[in-house]
Parts: sequence; structure tokens; C-alpha cells
Amino acid sequence: MLQNYMLVLAYDGTNYHGFQFQKNALTVQEVLEKKLEKIYKRKIRVEVAGRTDSGVHARGQVVNMLAPPLLTPLQLLRALNRILPADIAILRAKAVPQGFHVRKDACAKIYTYTIDNGRIADVFQRCYAWYIHAPLNTEAMQKGARYLVGKHDFKAFQSANSIVKTTVRTLFDLQVKQENSMLTICFKGDGFLYKMVRCITGTLVDVGRRKTDPREILEILKSRERQRAGRTAPAKGLCLEKVLYRDSPDVGET
Amino acid sequence: MLQNYMLVLAYDGTNYHGFQFQKNALTVQEVLEKKLEKIYKRKIRVEVAGRTDSGVHARGQVVNMLAPPLLTPLQLLRALNRILPADIAILRAKAVPQGFHVRKDACAKIYTYTIDNGRIADVFQRCYAWYIHAPLNTEAMQKGARYLVGKHDFKAFQSANSIVKTTVRTLFDLQVKQENSMLTICFKGDGFLYKMVRCITGTLVDVGRRKTDPREILEILKSRERQRAGRTAPAKGLCLEKVLYRDSPDVGET
Repeated sequence: MLQNYMLVLAYDGTNYHGFQFQKNALTVQEVLEKKLEKIYKRKIRVEVAGRTDSGVHARGQVVNMLAPPLLTPLQLLRALNRILPADIAILRAKAVPQGFHVRKDACAKIYTYTIDNGRIADVFQRCYAWYIHAPLNTEAMQKGARYLVGKHDFKAFQSANSIVKTTVRTLFDLQVKQENSMLTICFKGDGFLYKMVRCITGTLVDVGRRKTDPREILEILKSRERQRAGRTAPAKGLCLEKVLYRDSPDVGET
Repeated sequence: MLQNYMLVLAYDGTNYHGFQFQKNALTVQEVLEKKLEKIYKRKIRVEVAGRTDSGVHARGQVVNMLAPPLLTPLQLLRALNRILPADIAILRAKAVPQGFHVRKDACAKIYTYTIDNGRIADVFQRCYAWYIHAPLNTEAMQKGARYLVGKHDFKAFQSANSIVKTTVRTLFDLQVKQENSMLTICFKGDGFLYKMVRCITGTLVDVGRRKTDPREILEILKSRERQRAGRTAPAKGLCLEKVLYRDSPDVGET
């Protein structure tokens, strides 16, 4: 009988081609599964909550995996952290019911997008923030963001050519925060379309630069046309902060 | 007639073999001087305030250089930032009197040393903090640090085999601060012996781990023997924050 384990992990996505396994490109999944194979002496397949893209980071990614019940969750966490590279870390481990699936059972996810709006780009944030020299009006961005909160068809903010059953998603919360010259846009939603966070960010930046009026956000949303929205913000500013589950409120705790 | 320019710069030292020029190893000085040569079409030599070691970072390094008076300081700053790699940035530029020398005229320097004392190493701090798993007692470290403030012979805390005229230095201030699981040790002094900050840090960590009593710091200091002090802390946690000048109080402003 296999045990279902859930792991919460953090990674610096700079040196990875995203989470999900790819031929001929290093991904977080490949590294993680190789280390699991080292521990269990057999292939272990992980399921992931949020398939982050190349260069995207995580402070609270969640995976689950079926494995022989040889180790307690804490032993598994320690065994992995001993052999994982320094840019991937297991933060928590937990035994979960057999049928639990990190993606299917997730009820919400929190992503942040970080913008460096300083006079000069912060060298220490070059891999974790999108540098924008032009001053951004955060009040206008906040105003624009408000139109997006709620249950909407977000077709205008998904990557062109995506094919999904429905483009309706619920954004529970969307906040634009400023601390000195760093801006953080915080997204909480029940699910996100492909590149949705980065499309919304690019559009809100246009609002911050006063190229787009905050009220136009509503028109763009209603249009359902990708070309009306702004550019896709670069991957490096994006971070998966947390995945929330209804039945295990402690799971995503930070 | 050449103009003397002073530049304040930040760099992520991870990918450099320190500041100072070396044969067969990439340094910040080499990159900076190559870019200056590109701008001026002639060799420009920079003088540096603090010769940081391989892997050490800077948020307020200072250099000065004599160059043809073709550019205003702001033009020079912009021209350099346009062509410098993303891990080096010029924060401020200023025209200074002919005789001004960033090292000889410095009256104090501020360094910080960062320690990650979390349960699990922060993947985003892996190049900027020394990870120590064992819990550190910061109160004991603060107590030990107090014995070092003032004018002392710091021979016990310099790298063995260093040869300098005098090992007497004045430490104006030494603070151990804690914020969540991150510890910052802040050093302000009139000058620092080779690896002095990292030797003191290693010794204070022994105090934090309760291997060394805070009062022993005084005995180690008085002994003037390197082998009595703790290990040299790794380079990556060290950052040159600021260089202070008597006649130009605005120079090192952050």
C-alpha cells in the first residue's frame, strides 16, 4: 500500500525551465523526481498544484506523490533537503488521504508579481522583479484592479491560442501595494488562465504609466479580446505564494 | 585638465572574484574599467574605497577616477548604467576636487553581515546570507559584541598571515539585529583589517551557539591570537553598505 505525501516547496525559478518535466530542458519536477528516485530506489511521479513557467518562482508550491510508506513526512522532508540543490527547498511535508490531489482539490491560489520602480534598478532584485523606470501611479493601478475582482470571463487576459473549456474564473482579491520603490501586485483566485497574472500585470502597468485609463480595464475585460490588453509581464517577477485547500486549512500556511 | 569623478555603486558579488583587478578572474573593477574605456575611448583607472573579496556584495561601494571632463556626472551615470551588466549599478555620481581619494579620505565604513537562522534555508537568500541551522541566541551575541566597540588592537580578528603597519582600529558601532529568522550584524568602523568582519562574525556565531561565553570575547580580543577567535564566516553574507567622508556628508547617503 502506497502512502500519499504532500510537500510544500520553495524554489528560485531563475535556472529552471519551469516546473513541469520537459525533454532537453532542466525543470524543477525533473530535479525533484531524480532526488526521490535516489531516496526510494524507484521512480516516483509527483503531481503539482500550479505549473509555473520558465523563470517563475515559488514560495509555496504544492506537490503530492504516492510512495512506499518507509518514511515519516519529517524524515522525507529532511532526506530531500539534504540532497536538493540550494535553489529548491521542501518547507513542509504531510501524509494526506489516498485520494487527495494537489491540483484538483485546490480551492484557491495566491500569486504575487513584483515590480522594481526605482530610479535605478536594484541589482539584488534583477531576477525577482520587473524593472520599470517610468514612474507608476499606484493609485490608478489600484483603481483599475478593482474592476477585475469577482467572477468574470478573463478571456482578454489569457495567452493567445490557449484552449480551455471555460475562461471564467473568480478573482477573490487583487491588491497593488507599494513599499519604497517596490510594487507588489497580489492575486488571489480560484484558478488562473495561462499567463493570466502576467497579462493583467502588463495591463495594470499601462494604467500606472497613464497610457490606459483605469476605467478602460472594464472595457478590456468585457471585450474578451487579448489584443486589447497590455503586454505580458516578464516571468521573473512572478511568484506562486500559496495554494489553499478547503479540507486542510493548515496546508498552505506560511 | 582631467576631472575627478566619484561614483557610488551597488553590485551583486556572486559572479565576481571580488572588486580588485586580477589576472584570469573576472572582477568588478575589470568590468567597470572596460565600460569606462568604451565611453572614453581610453583607459580609465578607478580607485576604490573598500576592496571587497570574492563573493562579497556592495550596496554603497565608492570609487573615484580622473577622466576628461566631457560628461556631467549624471551623463556619466546614465552612460555607464546603459552598458553595465544587471548585477552592477551606478547609484550616484559627483564631481569632486582634484585631490579627493575615496580610500584615503574615507573616515568610516559600514558593513553588514547577514545570517539565515531559519528552520529551512531560504532559497532566495542562498547567495546573500550564511545559513546556520542551529538556533542562535542573539542576546548573547549582542552582549559579546559590546566588548568589541571602541578603539582596540583587533589582531585576533584578522586573517592569519596578514601584514599591516598597525592592527589597531576603532569600531564605532556593532549591532546584532534580528527580524524573523534573519540576523543582521551591522559594523561601523574607521577601517577594517583583512577579513576582520568575517572573523568577528564567526566568533559571534560561536557565542550565539553557546560554544563561547560572551565574556570570552574580551579575552580573545586581548590575546591578539587569531586561533582563539572563531572561523571566518563565508563571503556571501557580507555587504559593504556605505562609505562615509568628513567633508562630503552627502556622499554616502542611501
